[in-house]
Amino acid sequence: MKESPDRSQLPPGIPTGPLLIVISGSSGVGKDTVLARMRELGSSLKFITTVTTRPQRPNEKNDIDYHFVSTERFQEMIKNKELLEWANVYGNWYGVPREAVKRSLDEGKDTIIKVDIQGAATIKKILPQAIFIFLMPPSMEELLVRLKQRRTESPAELALRLKTAEEEIKQLPLFDYAVTNRWDELDLAVATINSIITAEKCRLTPRDIKL
Amino acid sequence: MKESPDRSQLPPGIPTGPLLIVISGSSGVGKDTVLARMRELGSSLKFITTVTTRPQRPNEKNDIDYHFVSTERFQEMIKNKELLEWANVYGNWYGVPREAVKRSLDEGKDTIIKVDIQGAATIKKILPQAIFIFLMPPSMEELLVRLKQRRTESPAELALRLKTAEEEIKQLPLFDYAVTNRWDELDLAVATINSIITAEKCRLTPRDIKL
Repeated sequence: MKESPDRSQLPPGIPTGPLLIVISGSSGVGKDTVLARMRELGSSLKFITTVTTRPQRPNEKNDIDYHFVSTERFQEMIKNKELLEWANVYGNWYGVPREAVKRSLDEGKDTIIKVDIQGAATIKKILPQAIFIFLMPPSMEELLVRLKQRRTESPAELALRLKTAEEEIKQLPLFDYAVTNRWDELDLAVATINSIITAEKCRLTPRDIKL
Repeated sequence: MKESPDRSQLPPGIPTGPLLIVISGSSGVGKDTVLARMRELGSSLKFITTVTTRPQRPNEKNDIDYHFVSTERFQEMIKNKELLEWANVYGNWYGVPREAVKRSLDEGKDTIIKVDIQGAATIKKILPQAIFIFLMPPSMEELLVRLKQRRTESPAELALRLKTAEEEIKQLPLFDYAVTNRWDELDLAVATINSIITAEKCRLTPRDIKL
């Protein structure tokens, strides 16, 4: 009795396909931290690792936190259409490997990808049936404080990121959900995202997501 | 930092109005039990008590489980437009008191009502912005077993309820969500409904629900 119901016995109308969840948000809002915590707490989701040309940070593991590649390799991936979506974010390239997403969805697994706001807009055009979650800072002031604490940006870079974040929030109507990431309550954001996924599994909107 | 964000500072596009949640499902699926358990576990929702002409069962409290009224009083409530929706279900009348729903929504409270499937269809016409949840049995066979265990229906009544439930499931497309109530895992259904409510609070669909 513990297994989930045999969905093939359910009446027509109940969607059975896997979900594609797109987590996005401005630089510094904590997308990586939230996803790392979701993985740490255990999740049946398939997390797709982003490809990047950004230098590896000391606490990051290659092929888990990111696939770290050279700019040449990244350009080659674009040329070979190996990336579902890619963008240059503050001087570094980031991309979502197409084959990994396709394989995961083909296997029927609920799949989660992480993209910047431009990337979410691109994915929305290709796969409007995906579920778009905008991770929000509690306020712009708190985002600035957090970016400063990272000490990875110069004052000019900080100002640019804040200005960009203010612009990016205008893209909110593209998204299905907004989740506030209060940095002292990381697990609340994680629980909220998990609730959204649970709800979407029960949602009666038809979905047929294929790459 | 524990308070929820001041939503008046949020950018346009984030809905701030209260939710109206409509829980429905066939007779015997456990609507009352699920709602009682939600209340028991503590909830910030406003639960609207249904008015009924059905006789009070020994374990039920008047004005908490139901407002038990006479048929005359019920007819008067219909005449005075005191009911948002009403239906005769297997010989007894059930209605949702309009004023209680209106007051709760006017106070900005997330509000939950319980109706049969016909009732959900009626509410859908009046308030399409409400959130419609269909509580499902794990299977028709298990619904029959459970109805039998209640020992409140004759074999002919049982057969009618099962047939009706099979018809009612065709109304699924009216609903936003389907939640299976496995009776040995009541808290799973409750947690799923709570996840749906959490998700809907983050959902960027405009809602402006007024009675």
